[in-house]
Amino acid sequence: MKIGLLGGGQLGRMLALAGYPLGLKFRTLDLSPEAPAGHLTELMVADFNDVDALKRFAAGLDLVTYEFENVPVDSAHFLSERLPVHPPPEALEKGQDRAVEKTFFQSLKIPTPLFATVEVWEEFEQAIERIGLPAVLKTRRFGYDGKGQFELRKLEDMAPAWRSLGGVPLILESFVPFEREVSIIAVRSRGGATAFYPLVENHHRAGMLRLSIAPAPALTPAMQSRAEEYAVRVMDALNYVGVLAIEFFEREGELYANEMAPRVHNSGHWTIEGAATNQFENHLRAILGWPLGSTAAPRCSAMVNIIGRIPDIQSVLATSGAHLHLYGKSARPNRKLGHVTICAEDFESLKGRIAQIRALVDY
Amino acid sequence: MKIGLLGGGQLGRMLALAGYPLGLKFRTLDLSPEAPAGHLTELMVADFNDVDALKRFAAGLDLVTYEFENVPVDSAHFLSERLPVHPPPEALEKGQDRAVEKTFFQSLKIPTPLFATVEVWEEFEQAIERIGLPAVLKTRRFGYDGKGQFELRKLEDMAPAWRSLGGVPLILESFVPFEREVSIIAVRSRGGATAFYPLVENHHRAGMLRLSIAPAPALTPAMQSRAEEYAVRVMDALNYVGVLAIEFFEREGELYANEMAPRVHNSGHWTIEGAATNQFENHLRAILGWPLGSTAAPRCSAMVNIIGRIPDIQSVLATSGAHLHLYGKSARPNRKLGHVTICAEDFESLKGRIAQIRALVDY
Repeated sequence: MKIGLLGGGQLGRMLALAGYPLGLKFRTLDLSPEAPAGHLTELMVADFNDVDALKRFAAGLDLVTYEFENVPVDSAHFLSERLPVHPPPEALEKGQDRAVEKTFFQSLKIPTPLFATVEVWEEFEQAIERIGLPAVLKTRRFGYDGKGQFELRKLEDMAPAWRSLGGVPLILESFVPFEREVSIIAVRSRGGATAFYPLVENHHRAGMLRLSIAPAPALTPAMQSRAEEYAVRVMDALNYVGVLAIEFFEREGELYANEMAPRVHNSGHWTIEGAATNQFENHLRAILGWPLGSTAAPRCSAMVNIIGRIPDIQSVLATSGAHLHLYGKSARPNRKLGHVTICAEDFESLKGRIAQIRALVDY
Repeated sequence: MKIGLLGGGQLGRMLALAGYPLGLKFRTLDLSPEAPAGHLTELMVADFNDVDALKRFAAGLDLVTYEFENVPVDSAHFLSERLPVHPPPEALEKGQDRAVEKTFFQSLKIPTPLFATVEVWEEFEQAIERIGLPAVLKTRRFGYDGKGQFELRKLEDMAPAWRSLGGVPLILESFVPFEREVSIIAVRSRGGATAFYPLVENHHRAGMLRLSIAPAPALTPAMQSRAEEYAVRVMDALNYVGVLAIEFFEREGELYANEMAPRVHNSGHWTIEGAATNQFENHLRAILGWPLGSTAAPRCSAMVNIIGRIPDIQSVLATSGAHLHLYGKSARPNRKLGHVTICAEDFESLKGRIAQIRALVDY
């Protein structure tokens, strides 16, 4: 079986690492000859919109999946006329536009922050009036890792926000005074079977995920069920196949959907060591129609991202319970270069180990 | 860092899978363009004795290791004049000849079965007289997976044994009426630090490893210490760097060394899921001079080899606690195509799962 990966970043790399033991082979399509997945898969360098390249890419593949959500929907459709493409291109479509995505959540009765679409200044003023402050102005498309966002705390922030982002379709979202951010990693197989990892608590800095703790401390069965129920609504509505991540704001016992990603997710990397079956293997099992693996996570885990600078490797490896994952990328400010998973028997010892790793990675 | 792998079989493949998350890259040298490690590393197809190929292989590498023990010692020495080669070529030398190996064990006061070298028929007769029956006649070199061996139970077996193996240097070994076979996977880093996985109980059929159980049931601390002590003697004598496996016969509380392998070992595959750090990662850490990882194995594990035929993948994946590892090889009788690791909280549930997997893989 040969799987095509649209996108050759670290997620593609980890999919391949999980897939080789299953006897799979991989071909990757990426813009860059330096793509991290290219070190260990057959790499094709081309633009995702290049129809001839897509045809050559598809030749001899059994199915196609993607590892980033900004794959052009038309390209996904083009491929899906030739061979199975999972998750469904419709999931890309919903996820690529923040307004479409939030409207979709609301249609499924999944709470979201208040929001309004904004294209011209007058709409911006009306949106501020309706939603109030604080709020966040975001580009509707192509935002990631905090890019394309502007926080508004007072009316005077409107002008600089507009200068920074105005001119493309925008969305203004109410700033939920959340207690924390959590995410669920869910998976649905071709046969409709589902599985869920425990909710994870996420910590960002400057819009980038820095730390995930799994399970989310003080996670209640009720909160877990609620998140699973929301994920099921999304997956059933899309006839979804593969791993799906949904990020929520948690506030006073309710979850507000912030965004979803139709792919394996940074907040699920801890599953490589922390769960019986990791998210990458379960994504592959799902898209192949194979039985899903256990998502049991008997211990506590944390994931700390390595951003901008490779830490001292020997110090990381010498830390009790730490597992290093480098992506084979060259260092650059604000670039995700790897992550460290930390496992422990209880939260107390986990906390100490997280502190040790944070010191090593400047977080 | 770029590591050269001499040999591109499944062991090389699993070394690469363990090494990519550490940020390493790999170049493999193998005779076959179909080598399993070639799917995910830069593969060079050449003979191990081809000096020009060895020069090209070495160019740009940081260090070299091997994944099978029949690498020509001269080639290992040739490379070691150019860049670090771990484990030391001397370990290959000791391990490639059963008589040299057993003499080496004895020089370190590690018990072995009685043995005698045999080149001509008269020596064979003298050896039988001295060692008695039952005994095993083996080629001194290039034996593996039970190949090049002939069991002798009565004097009438001598003639067919001689017809089968005579003409090359042989060794006659006393057949130890052992209670079981066990092996230790040890690792020693460039700095001299050592670590040991728990002793594993091994079951063979027709000379091939079929099943390993870790830790070996009813393993006593005394037996573990003894095996570690023997491994330390071997590693210290060779100034060894990397993973070393030693197979023992266990009988009446004593261990008799059968053979050693200067590499990661089939009886250590369970460590991928069953230990905090697996043997492949620890081999790489050792040869890089990085801190060794924990060898803790809190649960019980088993490893069942997949030989000759790929089992029904979905049935394997649906088995509780089972993890599939295929090597990307085409099926052929008596060929190792993969293995299944099975984890469980206790031996009772492990036994049930082993039975399920054995039924699937015809063992």
